[in-house]
Amino acid sequence: MAKLIFSNVIGSFVFNENCKLVDGLLFKDIEQYNNKDEYEEKLIQKHKDIARPKGDELFNILLFFKNKKYFSQFCNKNIELTRDAIRKSVGNDSLIIQTINSIEDIDKTINLLAKRLREWYSLYNPEISYNVEDHEKFVSTIIKKTKNQLLKDLNIDENDSMGANLKEKDVSAILLLSTQLNNSYKLKNHYENYLKELEKDTCPNFATVGGVTIAAKLISHAGSLKRLVEMPASTIQILGAEKALFRHMRNKRRNLPPKFGIIHEHQLIQKSKNDMHGKAARALSDKLSIAVKIDYFKGKFIGDKLKKGLVDKFKISY
Amino acid sequence: MAKLIFSNVIGSFVFNENCKLVDGLLFKDIEQYNNKDEYEEKLIQKHKDIARPKGDELFNILLFFKNKKYFSQFCNKNIELTRDAIRKSVGNDSLIIQTINSIEDIDKTINLLAKRLREWYSLYNPEISYNVEDHEKFVSTIIKKTKNQLLKDLNIDENDSMGANLKEKDVSAILLLSTQLNNSYKLKNHYENYLKELEKDTCPNFATVGGVTIAAKLISHAGSLKRLVEMPASTIQILGAEKALFRHMRNKRRNLPPKFGIIHEHQLIQKSKNDMHGKAARALSDKLSIAVKIDYFKGKFIGDKLKKGLVDKFKISY
Repeated sequence: MAKLIFSNVIGSFVFNENCKLVDGLLFKDIEQYNNKDEYEEKLIQKHKDIARPKGDELFNILLFFKNKKYFSQFCNKNIELTRDAIRKSVGNDSLIIQTINSIEDIDKTINLLAKRLREWYSLYNPEISYNVEDHEKFVSTIIKKTKNQLLKDLNIDENDSMGANLKEKDVSAILLLSTQLNNSYKLKNHYENYLKELEKDTCPNFATVGGVTIAAKLISHAGSLKRLVEMPASTIQILGAEKALFRHMRNKRRNLPPKFGIIHEHQLIQKSKNDMHGKAARALSDKLSIAVKIDYFKGKFIGDKLKKGLVDKFKISY
Repeated sequence: MAKLIFSNVIGSFVFNENCKLVDGLLFKDIEQYNNKDEYEEKLIQKHKDIARPKGDELFNILLFFKNKKYFSQFCNKNIELTRDAIRKSVGNDSLIIQTINSIEDIDKTINLLAKRLREWYSLYNPEISYNVEDHEKFVSTIIKKTKNQLLKDLNIDENDSMGANLKEKDVSAILLLSTQLNNSYKLKNHYENYLKELEKDTCPNFATVGGVTIAAKLISHAGSLKRLVEMPASTIQILGAEKALFRHMRNKRRNLPPKFGIIHEHQLIQKSKNDMHGKAARALSDKLSIAVKIDYFKGKFIGDKLKKGLVDKFKISY
């Protein structure tokens, strides 16, 4: 009767017909386990006339490893395997998710602190806050120029200003907040570029069709690139509109189904007419679904063609 | 019959018995108007035998100024007066309010971004996040030391770490967020010192009895130092617990009145036993009410005595 070969996380082993251990090679680390075919090949070369266990044979071999002396080896190897799996689960898509979430959080802090800065600075120089609506421009303006310069730019006489004459240390306290805000804007900008680069490596097609931000938000909402690939186009279309979807499903007569979720922000939908919204959303999510599948399975770059199809169809450039 | 003297924002004027203008001095700016007594004195010296208008005389003089030629003068002077009032309304208490609100907003942003940083950094080095609970310490730790150093400090072998091996640019993206957070902590610290100085000038007694943060929060909640002075001690006691107070007033049987609002955070109440909470809150708000009145009317510094009274009474140091 032929000898039997069997491998597990500990090593590759050869048994005789009575399920007694005859030969074996132990794996030193997970990498050797991952290349276990090589080690099995060596043993097969050495012993010739060798077969894989079946039925009762397999049962007896598994019983053999039930011996307590193997327990700690199994335990350690399995922990190593798990650790390895955890380590490898951090792909570029995890980084994309963290980055887009950070950008959104930074946006929140910017809004909060910008409102505070405007209120505080208005005690000192109220005329500027009314004249500069954009937060980012407001912050950079008051950092660069003094009160007098700003008033001169607006053709306001110094004595006509409603602002209080604050001491220098009071003004510098306000300006510290604006410096912090300016740094937040810089950080956000940096992360947006970083995100662009990450997506260039990970999902170039997807990012080209959907745009950097929307692509990242879709990945973040789905949880990973893999889960996004598994979704049909119609799910991608309404990703982020779960509330409206379930409202519709509870009461179909009163609530229409949502036309779009996260992709609502996309230029193709923003720029199209009201009665074309649904059509544009369906076409866009369709192309997105194709693009993400190409990216996941490392296909060629055809993002520009997919994008051109949409642009030509709806006569909307983005 | 005597001549009559009358002043308004335009100037000081002398009329004869028929309410015809005889003499006058015009004010050039608001400052002269504020010192109008001087100008009136000059006219009184010049004309002698002069009186203030009463009844019909006053009515006729006011009619005289109803002439359209004075309208633009009145308008301009009143705008100047208003502008001056607005400018002078920015006292140190306005700055205290802005500063404490900024500190609270910065705290919110720190919490938001610190949670994000922990999640992001845990992809790279999860062991640290579990071992350092304090956000501020966590941020400064990961800025100062590399992954290997941190693992060595925790006696964890490099190969046993669950963290992914990220590229350098991925790690530096994470560290940028921690630098931003570190700056937020520095800014908050700076504002806390600034607040302390502001209160030293504006309300030393109040700040000594209540503590810097609680004093600032009370001023912010009342709207100004003046409005706080006008409040009875019992209102100061429950400032910030309006919701509980009105719940009590709507349904007295079910809801007890609140014992404290903002002053709940005070050490005197935090450290006292449950059954002494009400007593401590009443005593504290009593002393706070005394202290804020002394500060508003520029009295002497007796904050330390007031504080000692509370410390001795409740045997709680703060």
